[in-house]
Amino acid sequence: MKNSFGNSVQITLFGESHGAAIGAVLDGFAPGIEVNEAFIAAQMEKRQGIAEISTKRREKDAVRILSGVFNGKTTGAPITFYIENNDKKSHDYNEIRYMPRPSHADYTAHCKYHGFEDYRGGGHFSGRLTAPLVAAGAVAIKALEKKGIFLGTHILECATLRDKPFGDYGRELAYLQSAALPVLNPAVGEQIKQVIAKASEVGDSVGGILETAVIGMPAGVGEPFFDSLESALSHAMFSIPAVKGVEFGMGFEIAKYLGSKVNDEWRMEADKPVTTTNHNGGINGGISNGMPILFRTAVKPTPSIFKDQKTINLATGENAVIKIKGRHDPAIIHRARVVQDSLTALVLCDMLALRYGTDYLAK
Amino acid sequence: MKNSFGNSVQITLFGESHGAAIGAVLDGFAPGIEVNEAFIAAQMEKRQGIAEISTKRREKDAVRILSGVFNGKTTGAPITFYIENNDKKSHDYNEIRYMPRPSHADYTAHCKYHGFEDYRGGGHFSGRLTAPLVAAGAVAIKALEKKGIFLGTHILECATLRDKPFGDYGRELAYLQSAALPVLNPAVGEQIKQVIAKASEVGDSVGGILETAVIGMPAGVGEPFFDSLESALSHAMFSIPAVKGVEFGMGFEIAKYLGSKVNDEWRMEADKPVTTTNHNGGINGGISNGMPILFRTAVKPTPSIFKDQKTINLATGENAVIKIKGRHDPAIIHRARVVQDSLTALVLCDMLALRYGTDYLAK
Amino acid sequence: MKNSFGNSVQITLFGESHGAAIGAVLDGFAPGIEVNEAFIAAQMEKRQGIAEISTKRREKDAVRILSGVFNGKTTGAPITFYIENNDKKSHDYNEIRYMPRPSHADYTAHCKYHGFEDYRGGGHFSGRLTAPLVAAGAVAIKALEKKGIFLGTHILECATLRDKPFGDYGRELAYLQSAALPVLNPAVGEQIKQVIAKASEVGDSVGGILETAVIGMPAGVGEPFFDSLESALSHAMFSIPAVKGVEFGMGFEIAKYLGSKVNDEWRMEADKPVTTTNHNGGINGGISNGMPILFRTAVKPTPSIFKDQKTINLATGENAVIKIKGRHDPAIIHRARVVQDSLTALVLCDMLALRYGTDYLAK
Amino acid sequence: MKNSFGNSVQITLFGESHGAAIGAVLDGFAPGIEVNEAFIAAQMEKRQGIAEISTKRREKDAVRILSGVFNGKTTGAPITFYIENNDKKSHDYNEIRYMPRPSHADYTAHCKYHGFEDYRGGGHFSGRLTAPLVAAGAVAIKALEKKGIFLGTHILECATLRDKPFGDYGRELAYLQSAALPVLNPAVGEQIKQVIAKASEVGDSVGGILETAVIGMPAGVGEPFFDSLESALSHAMFSIPAVKGVEFGMGFEIAKYLGSKVNDEWRMEADKPVTTTNHNGGINGGISNGMPILFRTAVKPTPSIFKDQKTINLATGENAVIKIKGRHDPAIIHRARVVQDSLTALVLCDMLALRYGTDYLAK
Repeated sequence: MKNSFGNSVQITLFGESHGAAIGAVLDGFAPGIEVNEAFIAAQMEKRQGIAEISTKRREKDAVRILSGVFNGKTTGAPITFYIENNDKKSHDYNEIRYMPRPSHADYTAHCKYHGFEDYRGGGHFSGRLTAPLVAAGAVAIKALEKKGIFLGTHILECATLRDKPFGDYGRELAYLQSAALPVLNPAVGEQIKQVIAKASEVGDSVGGILETAVIGMPAGVGEPFFDSLESALSHAMFSIPAVKGVEFGMGFEIAKYLGSKVNDEWRMEADKPVTTTNHNGGINGGISNGMPILFRTAVKPTPSIFKDQKTINLATGENAVIKIKGRHDPAIIHRARVVQDSLTALVLCDMLALRYGTDYLAK
Repeated sequence: MKNSFGNSVQITLFGESHGAAIGAVLDGFAPGIEVNEAFIAAQMEKRQGIAEISTKRREKDAVRILSGVFNGKTTGAPITFYIENNDKKSHDYNEIRYMPRPSHADYTAHCKYHGFEDYRGGGHFSGRLTAPLVAAGAVAIKALEKKGIFLGTHILECATLRDKPFGDYGRELAYLQSAALPVLNPAVGEQIKQVIAKASEVGDSVGGILETAVIGMPAGVGEPFFDSLESALSHAMFSIPAVKGVEFGMGFEIAKYLGSKVNDEWRMEADKPVTTTNHNGGINGGISNGMPILFRTAVKPTPSIFKDQKTINLATGENAVIKIKGRHDPAIIHRARVVQDSLTALVLCDMLALRYGTDYLAK
Repeated sequence: MKNSFGNSVQITLFGESHGAAIGAVLDGFAPGIEVNEAFIAAQMEKRQGIAEISTKRREKDAVRILSGVFNGKTTGAPITFYIENNDKKSHDYNEIRYMPRPSHADYTAHCKYHGFEDYRGGGHFSGRLTAPLVAAGAVAIKALEKKGIFLGTHILECATLRDKPFGDYGRELAYLQSAALPVLNPAVGEQIKQVIAKASEVGDSVGGILETAVIGMPAGVGEPFFDSLESALSHAMFSIPAVKGVEFGMGFEIAKYLGSKVNDEWRMEADKPVTTTNHNGGINGGISNGMPILFRTAVKPTPSIFKDQKTINLATGENAVIKIKGRHDPAIIHRARVVQDSLTALVLCDMLALRYGTDYLAK
Repeated sequence: MKNSFGNSVQITLFGESHGAAIGAVLDGFAPGIEVNEAFIAAQMEKRQGIAEISTKRREKDAVRILSGVFNGKTTGAPITFYIENNDKKSHDYNEIRYMPRPSHADYTAHCKYHGFEDYRGGGHFSGRLTAPLVAAGAVAIKALEKKGIFLGTHILECATLRDKPFGDYGRELAYLQSAALPVLNPAVGEQIKQVIAKASEVGDSVGGILETAVIGMPAGVGEPFFDSLESALSHAMFSIPAVKGVEFGMGFEIAKYLGSKVNDEWRMEADKPVTTTNHNGGINGGISNGMPILFRTAVKPTPSIFKDQKTINLATGENAVIKIKGRHDPAIIHRARVVQDSLTALVLCDMLALRYGTDYLAK
């Protein structure tokens, strides 16, 4: 499937960082869903991040919808999101053509594509490829909202800083949709900005942990064994450049406890089964149990830093030192969160359509 | 795909814990690969775990190969692994028919299948379903070894205990293949046994963290964007019952550091590019970089414990208390490691076949 | 996908003609569907064909269901159909090991699998592999009937004989389900038996054309562009060994006419849109239009004949003459029709589940 | 998969007849393949057909490649072909908005998409969608040629006229690549033009039979059971709008003969196994046997004719009469042949990559 993902609802991605355009094709999506262009633009804006702590490459990223929308609504045919690449500075890459940047895809792309890869700005492996995902995700997010399903992502950790955990989901998810910096504790947000700014000043970068919550998912969605909700969500999350870990509910922490401490007991609450705790993050046996879905991703510090780094010269086979130029983010967590939201929404739309049919979201 | 996984090499799983039989179909596998039945039996034995700290349900799990093997070698046609269920005690489940066990798939299966699911012993959601995966994985592991690719898994953490990390991969992976308890530090192994035995005594359970390493993978394997090695491996790992987290290289820890501290610098070593550190776990941009592939999974404590737990009665809609009977594992980490090895091998065979053709392993 | 087929509902096939067993895994099928074992047995019996004009290899083909059925109903988990191979005479094949039978898969399997293929009785390429498809199809056919969807296949042509076309679908489809020889004109049926018997006497074989009709399909099922109903059905039909052509509605005949003669005009009939003619076989733009779905397959004469045939010796690279022994069918059309019904039902279940959700058939 | 097709090499299609643009994404294609833009343009030109017997809608169909090509060669990343829709006359469709054109997808699209479909010019179901397939196919055709695999399609039948069959493949396939009207007998070509022109004069349309040949395919390509070459090719062919039949080798004709008359006997020819006849069209058991692959499609007469036709009004539920306006083809066979070539090439590239790895075409 490579650059495609999904079963009933499938997303296909194309483009390179410094090519003519990037885009995505969203196929199998329900007909009759209103396409909110203002919301798409707002999501694209969120993906740009806060100017003061983001790359100086700030494309307008105007999304043009080429197909699949008619009279403002989805038609059921493939929806194509098209974004031109305007603000390119490819000359920055010519002199490091044969020097793989540490922790980037440069070397592995070279091995896989025998040197034919478009190396400029990371080519097809650039984080820029997430822009069309955000456009497609915006349509998915709005469709889910109509069904009472809401989601959002905050920066749980950045360097050694830690935001407060989700508590009052409904309110917090609504807040995150409009927050420029996605943190639940504003004081921590200020500190995060400072940490990022400080790393930027010295040509370095920081990473973090993103936490996503979904509320309103009906119980019984997800497929047995290989297509569990956890498998599908992690599959999608690990496609986000820089994600190195995915965990659900308590995640890795759960390994330290006795079963009796972390099992999620059931009880009836107003005729509805609920669990008293949610250590499993809303998923049992790979299937949604009606509780909030909760997961976290580990985002590594942006590998593009401005310090001297050791590398090799693929043309000469000798050791070398690389000094990356160009415009790079000192952190991507505040930008990646909207990508995480988008992929989450796309996975949920797929799983819901698989379970309830392709018209489900339209009903 | 539900109960199937893979592109060029695909595994399909079937069966229920207390049904007639369980099994798997391995399709697209290269022809001419020797099938080592003794190794399959040894892997099945490893999956049984150490008797003193495992469930009393200990089926012989004799694997019968129904198809795809002729004169001791794979034919290229689907290989079917068949295991009869002999040692069943289904009556243990009748009285808890309508009481979902906390942190099990009982409630979610009920929602998804409207009560038609085979509830006995977890039915299709039972950890028992991993047995045929181990049989299929045994064939894959041996095929990879012929290509110089070796892998293995150890218990990195159990409760608060911690094994030593991988150091000398070649020797340690060979050791793990034959070790009854997969730990690199024998002293920690003894403590782990005690911790599990102690939990068992009080009807409780423990979890842990499993760490897998793969050496010998050629650089350049993995697909861009959605079918990264990380996506494929995590997709497979999250299908193992009880896995709640997957991380590669430094994983979640990497989020705390500056880029300059964790980027993996390149250097030439005897004409071969290597990285000085391996914080990315052998994968850049979703593609293997030639360094050891390294990842960890979080395994939650077995949810079947013998203490009273609060739950609901789905038949009456009232709160209830469940006391699980039957034979259950106080821990599955020492058993799950061979499942993790098996799925890892299957994913790598698939990715290699996708890249180099279905005959690659046969060459 | 190789030995798997389908999206929401997927069938996976395994086994060889002279191996231990053959079988199929049906995944994604709705829960709560009654499994009628008597009907499965009846379909298996139909696949055996009429004794006097069929191969002397007549296995009882007792179908054992290994998984996915509980208390007589589907559970939603994979359903596994298992059939042992009992009546094998493999020695017939040893002496022609290196002599590819004309128009069989012997040579191509040899090229693809480098001589590791199980060559006995056609191995994985044997028509025997269609037996588990019939078992799975029986479950699908009964599920469709509950939704008012009925289907059946008759021998439209055999050698130069021609059955009458479908006229009164409801009655004729019911008749075909119980007919030993599937023809609408009994007189033609007798002639067909004679033609087959005559070919058998002289060690030769005949082919024919099978025509399938489906009534009761809702309009609006099928997917745009690549997953049209026609694409999905033909994909499945061409997997039946010996099928060399598939056509819908008027099929190849339509090419001779002017558009004005063959366009299917619409009219209202009791508040329901219907077409006055059905030259398109119930499918427009790849999507069902509510009219009967009608298609035909061309089945070549069984390639196993008992006359001397020229071939080569793959071991020596020399020309050779082969005289096939063993037990072979002088015709398979009367047996293949139930395979065609079965695959048709599986494709329709998949397309309906894709459109209306995996529970659709259960409702 | 809906608007995507293929395993290792996948094509995804998007767009509507009167939307902003149409296009295709070709994923998994080998890196390092030269992209011949002149050949793409020539193929697009061929798809336009001969002016005198084609629709008056003649877009320039300039293909813009948005991604996946760098320095004139494929990179291995998705290749995106983008074609703007310029020459649209949508007002022609407003007055027939609720009147489904006979034998078109109008009614079925309406059922499937609940009226949200873009109905203008057939929307996503328009033959115009085949334009980007031709662009993608052009890249595939050139890549195959480098491996010694050549293909082409001629009009075998049109109305009651019949071209001569393939004889001298190499020469004839080369000729067809450059022929404006793809027939092997020029005299028949002239007659075909007249038949089409005559139908056009009276507002009617004609269909025909297209025959495709492929030479140079290695033996052993194709997958067992469900992914036979025949299944894959027919799946693709039936996605071409207006195709109602697909047959291989002798096709439907083979049903009339005794096995002894149509079995393809083997013999050695200069150390290479060949068959004396090719009634199976180069495919045995779904796998290429090294002989020319030969198949035919039945193309129905263009359903858009200018005569009065009976239909219904979906808005009022009453019978109606439709008179189609706009610009329509009196025949598409001479245009569709390049679509058939293109899809054939894409299927073969996929099957070759599946068998020999994604780099195969690059070697």
